[in-house]
Amino acid sequence: VTGTFGDRLVARVAERRSQIVLGLDPDPARLWPAGASVAQEAKGDVAHRVASGVVAHCRAVIDAAGAECVAVKPQVACFERLGAPGWAALHEVAEHARAAGLLVLADAKRGDIDVSAAAYAQAFFGGVSTPWGEVPGLHADALTVNPLLGADSIVPFLTAARTSGAGLFLLVRTSNEGARDVQEAELTGGGILSDRLAALVARLGSEAGPLSDVGAVVGATAPEHLARLRDLMPRAVFLLPGVGAQGGRVEALAAAFSPGAAGGLIAASRGIVRAHESVGGDPAGAAHAAAADLRKQAWALGSSGSGQPDAGV
Amino acid sequence: VTGTFGDRLVARVAERRSQIVLGLDPDPARLWPAGASVAQEAKGDVAHRVASGVVAHCRAVIDAAGAECVAVKPQVACFERLGAPGWAALHEVAEHARAAGLLVLADAKRGDIDVSAAAYAQAFFGGVSTPWGEVPGLHADALTVNPLLGADSIVPFLTAARTSGAGLFLLVRTSNEGARDVQEAELTGGGILSDRLAALVARLGSEAGPLSDVGAVVGATAPEHLARLRDLMPRAVFLLPGVGAQGGRVEALAAAFSPGAAGGLIAASRGIVRAHESVGGDPAGAAHAAAADLRKQAWALGSSGSGQPDAGV
Repeated sequence: VTGTFGDRLVARVAERRSQIVLGLDPDPARLWPAGASVAQEAKGDVAHRVASGVVAHCRAVIDAAGAECVAVKPQVACFERLGAPGWAALHEVAEHARAAGLLVLADAKRGDIDVSAAAYAQAFFGGVSTPWGEVPGLHADALTVNPLLGADSIVPFLTAARTSGAGLFLLVRTSNEGARDVQEAELTGGGILSDRLAALVARLGSEAGPLSDVGAVVGATAPEHLARLRDLMPRAVFLLPGVGAQGGRVEALAAAFSPGAAGGLIAASRGIVRAHESVGGDPAGAAHAAAADLRKQAWALGSSGSGQPDAGV
Repeated sequence: VTGTFGDRLVARVAERRSQIVLGLDPDPARLWPAGASVAQEAKGDVAHRVASGVVAHCRAVIDAAGAECVAVKPQVACFERLGAPGWAALHEVAEHARAAGLLVLADAKRGDIDVSAAAYAQAFFGGVSTPWGEVPGLHADALTVNPLLGADSIVPFLTAARTSGAGLFLLVRTSNEGARDVQEAELTGGGILSDRLAALVARLGSEAGPLSDVGAVVGATAPEHLARLRDLMPRAVFLLPGVGAQGGRVEALAAAFSPGAAGGLIAASRGIVRAHESVGGDPAGAAHAAAADLRKQAWALGSSGSGQPDAGV
């Protein structure tokens, strides 16, 4: 791996002319026919059958919509609930995404202290050395991390990420209603808790290149925070969930792209994977069309950013 | 399962006369000989060999020290870094702990929104129904949850926990130095962020019984917060990490036990599992002695709580 996460992302976004991140949140009850038929015919216990269906489903989704995207974002919870076969499925899906030229942003929202944080980082990045050899990690290109435990809990993740040329996305302002409960707590020094989390993002991130290797999760559902958070984190990549089903609108996200086309990544899951439920047709065709529309909409908005004018040409 | 988590915990603590939680943070490079020899002789790839060694190690630790404890606390990161075999190992270790009469507190610090939170809850509690049958969950008795995403992110965990008679422990004030960065942010309404998290614990917890089913992680390294946090969460079980290696002292934890003997649970990992490194002797004997000492020390302090006088007799 060469280059920092920021540099790699800028190059990949320019190459694919896309800022769309394909969310993979497989629900066993809603697999595409390509996945359901594999689970139906698979041998073994229920978890293995479902996990094999999940892999086939995610592969089909990637094959259908991946060309319009720059990355996938597997929701780790959806794999973890399938136990050991689910973890194997997560590795298989990541491998398929990489083979399709996509970055892998593991949405795991992990957070823990010292050696435990380092152990999670081993799981998601480079693996662990043992007296019996190496156990491989997921080799994700980035991981979402929950910063409630503070800077010293983030450093082990960051150290491991940098060794792999990978990045982190810290939760700064999530897309749910309840984000207000804690993240909008008002601080005596002024501002809200999200602002303090944003300061952590800015402080911990790399200083080289146009974009830092520590980004921020900023919900597209709360665009009123976007410009202020951008000021606080001028070089952070914003991972923007909540477009579509949750009510976020692409056109409200312009501030995310001020450092350049790769400054904002728009995560979409249901809007792509379940597009056929609202527009009809086969799932693959509907997913491709939905991803293509979203890509064009975002690219029109995001490729005019001042920082990376040539990335948008 | 009958009864709430609080009721079950009160009964179990009284029965075992222990408030000690045995932390299981297996490091492949530091397995007990009983674990290392299994890994050495196991067939298969590295991950499977190491995972089998981890299971043997954790079983030996439980067999040595479990009788002095009321629960185990597997650090999920240490299993997750072994991939799919690690998840299978986690399930095996939980099963062994239950067979030894111990509660299982899964230390996973998960946190996510709506359907993703529900998916994590399926992984750690009751499992998931699929068109091809049930995939079993870990059936943990409790799970640590990160509350940064707010009340609506906690509700899916709590709903699933209650269905299983299980509980949650929300992170309120963690044991690391960096906890100050975010958790001690000062709020305009007075107090610090941890106080707001404590209010969430108090608000979301059950109202029946002497102890709530929503507890709090409160580091034993910051006893200056303990009395205030106890006032804010009068019926919450405090899970207290940080005794021993991290510098926390049992005698500073009295406020945790004010609702009764089961009001405070002292988590210890290195101090038990690696006791032989400082006192010599075989690991099992040293672990048993360390756990027994800690149990007596805590019981002397904690069984005089006003809420449950008879639990300490």
